[in-house]
Amino acid sequence: MRKNIVILGASGSIGQQTLDVIKQHANHYQLIGLSVNHRIEAIESELKTSTPLKVCVGDVSLVHAYKEKYPQHTFLVGNQGITQLAQLEEADIIVNAIVGYAGLKASLMALKNKKTVALANKESLVVAGYMISQLLDQYQGKLIPIDSEHSGVYQCLANQHGSIQRMILTASGGSLRHLNREQLKEVSVKEALTHPNWDMGAKITIDSATMMNKAFEVIEAHHLFNIDYDKIDVVMHPQSKVHAMVEFCDHSFIAQLGSPDMRVAISYALSHGKHLPLEGQSIDFTQALQLDFKPLDDNRYPIFKAVIEAAKLKNSLIASINGANEEVIDAFLKHKISFYELESILLQEIKSFEQFELETLEDIERADRIGRDAIKKALGGRL
Amino acid sequence: MRKNIVILGASGSIGQQTLDVIKQHANHYQLIGLSVNHRIEAIESELKTSTPLKVCVGDVSLVHAYKEKYPQHTFLVGNQGITQLAQLEEADIIVNAIVGYAGLKASLMALKNKKTVALANKESLVVAGYMISQLLDQYQGKLIPIDSEHSGVYQCLANQHGSIQRMILTASGGSLRHLNREQLKEVSVKEALTHPNWDMGAKITIDSATMMNKAFEVIEAHHLFNIDYDKIDVVMHPQSKVHAMVEFCDHSFIAQLGSPDMRVAISYALSHGKHLPLEGQSIDFTQALQLDFKPLDDNRYPIFKAVIEAAKLKNSLIASINGANEEVIDAFLKHKISFYELESILLQEIKSFEQFELETLEDIERADRIGRDAIKKALGGRL
Repeated sequence: MRKNIVILGASGSIGQQTLDVIKQHANHYQLIGLSVNHRIEAIESELKTSTPLKVCVGDVSLVHAYKEKYPQHTFLVGNQGITQLAQLEEADIIVNAIVGYAGLKASLMALKNKKTVALANKESLVVAGYMISQLLDQYQGKLIPIDSEHSGVYQCLANQHGSIQRMILTASGGSLRHLNREQLKEVSVKEALTHPNWDMGAKITIDSATMMNKAFEVIEAHHLFNIDYDKIDVVMHPQSKVHAMVEFCDHSFIAQLGSPDMRVAISYALSHGKHLPLEGQSIDFTQALQLDFKPLDDNRYPIFKAVIEAAKLKNSLIASINGANEEVIDAFLKHKISFYELESILLQEIKSFEQFELETLEDIERADRIGRDAIKKALGGRL
Repeated sequence: MRKNIVILGASGSIGQQTLDVIKQHANHYQLIGLSVNHRIEAIESELKTSTPLKVCVGDVSLVHAYKEKYPQHTFLVGNQGITQLAQLEEADIIVNAIVGYAGLKASLMALKNKKTVALANKESLVVAGYMISQLLDQYQGKLIPIDSEHSGVYQCLANQHGSIQRMILTASGGSLRHLNREQLKEVSVKEALTHPNWDMGAKITIDSATMMNKAFEVIEAHHLFNIDYDKIDVVMHPQSKVHAMVEFCDHSFIAQLGSPDMRVAISYALSHGKHLPLEGQSIDFTQALQLDFKPLDDNRYPIFKAVIEAAKLKNSLIASINGANEEVIDAFLKHKISFYELESILLQEIKSFEQFELETLEDIERADRIGRDAIKKALGGRL
C-alpha cells in the first residue's frame, strides 16, 4: 500500500526535495495534497501530471486562473486551506515544510488528528514543544524529524533497515606508518612493537604494521556480516577515533567512534549488544579535533592487496598465508629476520603455495602446515 | 541471571581487559573459567579472590605449584584443557582471545556446542570462515565480534540499547563564518544568503549565520528525544559531513554522516526509518578527507547562548524570541537593517520581554506578538 502524502510548503527547498523523493519512490508514496504561499509556479509540473490533488494557495488572487487551467484539482485558500490539508482524512503523512511560526498550527492540527508529521518546521517545537509532547501523548500521532541533525540522531538510535552499499573499516597505519619502504629496512623489534594508538599484544601489533591485520579484518567482516569483498573498503585514519562506518543505499553513513579502548567492544560483546555503563575515556569534542582519512597506499603496504586477492579465491591459500605469517612474525620477534624481510619473504613465498579446496579441519591443518613449512625452509639455517 | 563467562587467552591484552569489564559488571557476569599459556601470574589475582574456577594452563610444568597453592580451583592442561573449557556445559559465553591459529579449535568446539563465542581471535575466521558459517547455521551458536572495527559495524547496524550520555549536533558556522564580529558590520544580504554547504531557503540561511538555527535545533532535539539541555552539545564542523552523534554510557559514539542533501533525511522520514535507495552523492573516502571539529565560540555567535538560556526557562520567552527573530530577519532581507543590527537589536530587545507560563495556543500567540511588536517598535520609522 502506498502512503498518502501531503506537503505543506511545497514551493520551498524542503518541499521541492520532498517532491523529488516521492518521484523516486512512486511505488511507496502518493502525493494527494500540497500547499504553497504564492509561488504556485513551483508546483506547476505536479498540477500538470498528477492525479487529482487538493491544492492550497496562500495568495487568493492567484487561485482563479489556476482553477480554470487545472479543473481536475481541488483548490483551497489561505490558513483555512492549510488547516484542511493538515487534517485530511486520507493523508498518512503530513510533511510540514512551512517556513517559520506560520507552520505551528498545521503541526498542532495534524497531531490532534493522529497524523504522522514529518517535521521540517522547527519553529513548531521551538515555540510549542511541551504542548506538542502533550498532543503526542494524548492523540498518539507521530512526529518524525526532517532536520538533518535530528534525522542523524534518529538514524543513530534506530535499528538500521536497508541494504548496505559499503562497509568501511579504518586503519591507523600501525607502528611504522611514519616510515617509507626504504626506511623500513632499519626498523628494530622495539620500534615495530610501539603502536601509536592501541596498546595491544605483540602479534597483532606486528600485523598492524604490515597491514596484515587489516586484511584479516576485511576477511573477518566478509564472514561476520555476510558481505561481498567488493563492498568492504579500508581507509587510513591515523587518529583511530572512527572505527567503522556503514553506508546504506541512500548514501547515509552510520559510524561508530570511540577512544582506542577495547573494553568498549568487549563489554558490547558480552552484553549481546547493549551499551552498559563503563569507566573509560570519552572523545572530547569541547576541544578542537581533526579526523583525517586517506586511501590505503598499496605500494607502502603491499601485503594488504596480496592477502585480499588470496582471500577472494576462497580456497586453502589464505590459511597457508596465515600459517606463514605466524612463522615470519615469530622469526622477527626473535631477531632472526628484519621487519623488511618479514614482509618480503612472506610476499615471495605465498606466490607458490599449493592451492586446494578447504572442506575439513584436516584440509585447514594441511594448508597451515604448507605455509609454516615454506617459511621454515626459506629461512633455513637462520632459525 | 548472571551470565557465565569463560576467557580463553586470559593473560593477553584482550583477556585482561575482559577481566576488567567483568569486574565492572559483577552483577551481569560471573567468571567460571579461564586459560593462559604460560603467564599464569597474570591471573593470580583471580585465583586468589574468585569462587572456584576451571583454569587451563598451557605449560604443564607450571601447574603443580599452583594446584597446591589454590586447591579451590580445578586445573586443566594443554589443548585438551582448552577444548574442555570451550564446551563447558555451564558456560554462556566463551571469549576467545587466544593469539593466532592456535585459537581455531576452541572456536569450532564452542560453536559445535551451541555456545555464544565473543571472538577476538580473528584467525578463526581468516582460515575457517566458511566452515564457521556452516557451524553457525547447523548448531545455532552465536558469534559476536570483539575486534574494534567489527564491534563498530555491529554497533552501527544494531538497535541501540543503553542510556545516552551526550547528544552532539554539528554546526557549519553558516554563510558568514569566515568573518569576525567587526567584519560582520559590512555584510550584504547576498553574502548572508550564500551558505557554504547547504542550499536552503532564505530564512534558515540567515538563522544559520546567526546560529539561531542551531539554538532552535537544540530545542528541537530536547523535545524530539526527550533529553536534558545539559546533555546536548553543539560542535562546529565546517565540512557538514557528520550531522549528529550520540554518545552512550560506555563512551561509544554512533554518528550519522552524509553529503549535505536533505533528500536523505526526507526519505528516511517518509519511510518511517528505512534506508531506501536514493540517487545522490556519497562521501568519497577513496580521496583524502579531513573532518574538523571545534567548540562553538559564544563571543562570535552571542545569540546561541542567549537563546539556549531562554529555552531552559521553559516559559513564553522562547516563543517571543522566535517572533522577534522572524521580524528582524524580514527587516534585514528587505534591506532595512544591517546583519550586525539584526543580531544586536534582537539581543537587546529580548532582555526585556515579559515572561509567563505557556499553557494554551493563545498564550503562544500572545508571546509571539510580544516579540514581533517589540521589534517593530524598536525599528520605528525604518520599516
